[in-house]
Amino acid sequence: MEIIKPRTLSGFMELLPDKQQRFETMAEILRRTYASYGFAPLDTPAIEDAQILLAKGGGETEKQIYRFQKGDSDLALRFDLTVPLAKYVALHYSELAFPFRRFQISKVYRGERAQRGRFREFYQADIDIIGDGKLDILNEAEIPAIIYKVFRGFGLTRFQIHVNNRKILNGFYAMLGLTEKSGDIMRTVDKLDKIGADKVKIILLEDCGLSEEQAEDILKFIAIRGTNAQVISALEGYAGKNEMFDQGLSELKAVTVNLAAFGVPEENFAVDLTIARGLDYYTGTVYETTLLDHPEIGSVCSGGRYDNLAGYYIDKALPGVGISIGLTRLFYVLDEQGLLNPALPSAPADALVLPMTESPAEAIALAEKLRSAGLRVQLYGEQKKFKQKMAYANKLAVPFAVLLGEDEINEGVCSVKNMVTGEQLKLTAEDAAAHIKASLNTDCPVILET
Amino acid sequence: MEIIKPRTLSGFMELLPDKQQRFETMAEILRRTYASYGFAPLDTPAIEDAQILLAKGGGETEKQIYRFQKGDSDLALRFDLTVPLAKYVALHYSELAFPFRRFQISKVYRGERAQRGRFREFYQADIDIIGDGKLDILNEAEIPAIIYKVFRGFGLTRFQIHVNNRKILNGFYAMLGLTEKSGDIMRTVDKLDKIGADKVKIILLEDCGLSEEQAEDILKFIAIRGTNAQVISALEGYAGKNEMFDQGLSELKAVTVNLAAFGVPEENFAVDLTIARGLDYYTGTVYETTLLDHPEIGSVCSGGRYDNLAGYYIDKALPGVGISIGLTRLFYVLDEQGLLNPALPSAPADALVLPMTESPAEAIALAEKLRSAGLRVQLYGEQKKFKQKMAYANKLAVPFAVLLGEDEINEGVCSVKNMVTGEQLKLTAEDAAAHIKASLNTDCPVILET
Repeated sequence: MEIIKPRTLSGFMELLPDKQQRFETMAEILRRTYASYGFAPLDTPAIEDAQILLAKGGGETEKQIYRFQKGDSDLALRFDLTVPLAKYVALHYSELAFPFRRFQISKVYRGERAQRGRFREFYQADIDIIGDGKLDILNEAEIPAIIYKVFRGFGLTRFQIHVNNRKILNGFYAMLGLTEKSGDIMRTVDKLDKIGADKVKIILLEDCGLSEEQAEDILKFIAIRGTNAQVISALEGYAGKNEMFDQGLSELKAVTVNLAAFGVPEENFAVDLTIARGLDYYTGTVYETTLLDHPEIGSVCSGGRYDNLAGYYIDKALPGVGISIGLTRLFYVLDEQGLLNPALPSAPADALVLPMTESPAEAIALAEKLRSAGLRVQLYGEQKKFKQKMAYANKLAVPFAVLLGEDEINEGVCSVKNMVTGEQLKLTAEDAAAHIKASLNTDCPVILET
Repeated sequence: MEIIKPRTLSGFMELLPDKQQRFETMAEILRRTYASYGFAPLDTPAIEDAQILLAKGGGETEKQIYRFQKGDSDLALRFDLTVPLAKYVALHYSELAFPFRRFQISKVYRGERAQRGRFREFYQADIDIIGDGKLDILNEAEIPAIIYKVFRGFGLTRFQIHVNNRKILNGFYAMLGLTEKSGDIMRTVDKLDKIGADKVKIILLEDCGLSEEQAEDILKFIAIRGTNAQVISALEGYAGKNEMFDQGLSELKAVTVNLAAFGVPEENFAVDLTIARGLDYYTGTVYETTLLDHPEIGSVCSGGRYDNLAGYYIDKALPGVGISIGLTRLFYVLDEQGLLNPALPSAPADALVLPMTESPAEAIALAEKLRSAGLRVQLYGEQKKFKQKMAYANKLAVPFAVLLGEDEINEGVCSVKNMVTGEQLKLTAEDAAAHIKASLNTDCPVILET
């Protein structure tokens, strides 16, 4: 037979089993955390009518999209999960209960130039809460709690959720008479971390055409730092001059006041007046999340409040708030930085059962008993030497091997070998299950406690 | 803004939230059951190099495939999970531990003519065990146990796993001197259930050109029925005449002898000499699974033993055994037949927390407490009348509403309302969590006990 050399396309992540197991556990943590906040799972097609997917049209998106004909149909692969959500909500509007809370963890496709850490197929893990006409600010206040739970679930502690409110920014620029220039200013201010305050000022003066006084006012404003209480206190100094600013400040207070009740520690949260995000789309609270020891990675979880989810598809005001995690890129980066939680299981099984007798019947029954106790158990049936069996257990990195020979069967026990410490104990099936579970320290086998 | 009418492409399943929740729970049951047998999760790209995907080439597949250019690349969407597995194992051969056990639950794409119950995008839920050179028969014996656990997990009892062995068939036809015609004969015999023995005989005589005696021998053979012991006893009558037959019989015995140890009841299992499956591919044990009350649906879980997984990609003997469930079609059929397990949760949350005070702080803390007890909890923040809040709870079909007003806060309790019975109890947060969990009858919130 002629052999075709196998390969995987560049820009497409394909993991070896140990890494894939960790990736799956992270996906499971996301599903579990999102579900724990009452978000419904959603799954939309990866292929949509290209005309519908590109309703918003425009530039980069259209160039990157995978678009093709099949028969008479003009088709395209989704490039994010927001456009399919908008389509879904518009299409099923009359059948949904609002607020509609959904999560979706799915692959999206962008034919970008392949480069290290950039993927053409990647998972997004999104949540959105959609209101019909109105949506209470409490939903915006809840989002940091969900982000916090997710990243703690991933085993991370050194991260910070940055929050701002677009109404505060828009109101402030209106006070300075700079509404027309607010887009340019926000884009400039966004570079503060990278280029420093002096260069920001030069751009504001020279490129944006601001006066010395206006530029100074802006630099003073975005320099506001401190605890939530300190930042809000500083912002109170600007209150009473612009209605939109006051509304934004009131929303920011509502988002920060209940952080303790939501279980979010102050050190994982910061009001950050420099962030703005998608200039056309977001209208209120905006979120970014950074890893404190790796600022170069940028935001790993972003989103915000918007007023018009589905205007291209339906004549209804559908405000919402949502966040998105680029899971494939996050996994790649955490792996590269050695930040993958070592507690994430990498083996395909918690125990490998090795029958040491001619008939495997007792070993089969033992494996079934361990499974009904909630363990992931592989039964090893190959006719190999003992040394080769242990080499296989080591290669899989299973934490336990369970040996069952004539002696064990006669004694009503099995031999449980800890593959890390080498410790070997003779235990009944029940005690073996309890012993292994205790060492895994979790009730749900593939799920970490969050 | 001009409005584009939203639609979802025909042949693409898109579910409303209550149905999607049930679908997700079935996917979770599959993941959990497959993982409990030590299968590693695998996730390959949906897009592959078309040349590689079509290495085997040929007919129907090539017509149905979604194939397109992007830049200079000739790309295609996967049409099953077996070809990507073959590619994966060949590509990563030196890095894998064999036997390599993987499960994959992913969407595949076939541009078939859309018709009721046929999908162009659908989930397959596959497991395979791949050996390097050899693979013990115990792996084939384990497969019915996994099928049994999956379908019981789905809440079904009236199903039967049909097992046969291709070596028995090939050996038997060799005994009759019909090796050359065995393909035609198997295709004819496969129609037995649909057209009856008389018509099968006519085709065997007229189209296949068999003698009266040969046709009678075949009809007598495929009429063998009964318990596993009875069928095997009848097959023993043919033993000793053909080496391949004897090997197949020995394998069939190995697959059936340990069913009790694997926990598979006799009534859910049957040796069925009429099934053969994919004529070119399978070489040993073959499996089909039918719903006893809906034979018209055909097999809902099929697979078998093969000798050469990846011959197109690598010069290695890679035998394996695997099964596939067409999850999207199965879900569609179960839903249509009213066979979806009513215990599958359809609500996005186990409890809806309704703050009845000005500040939501206490309600937020209560919701967090219920979540840390493992419940899925939605906090409802909209400023609506009580009646509207309850209407929302009813529309979501959440099993419990949890009310928290001044009275409850002062008493240190919350009011837990069972939305089905109307029963309302004042309970502490801890007791409320226990009460709700007890009614859900499961430790893992979105997962049924299997």
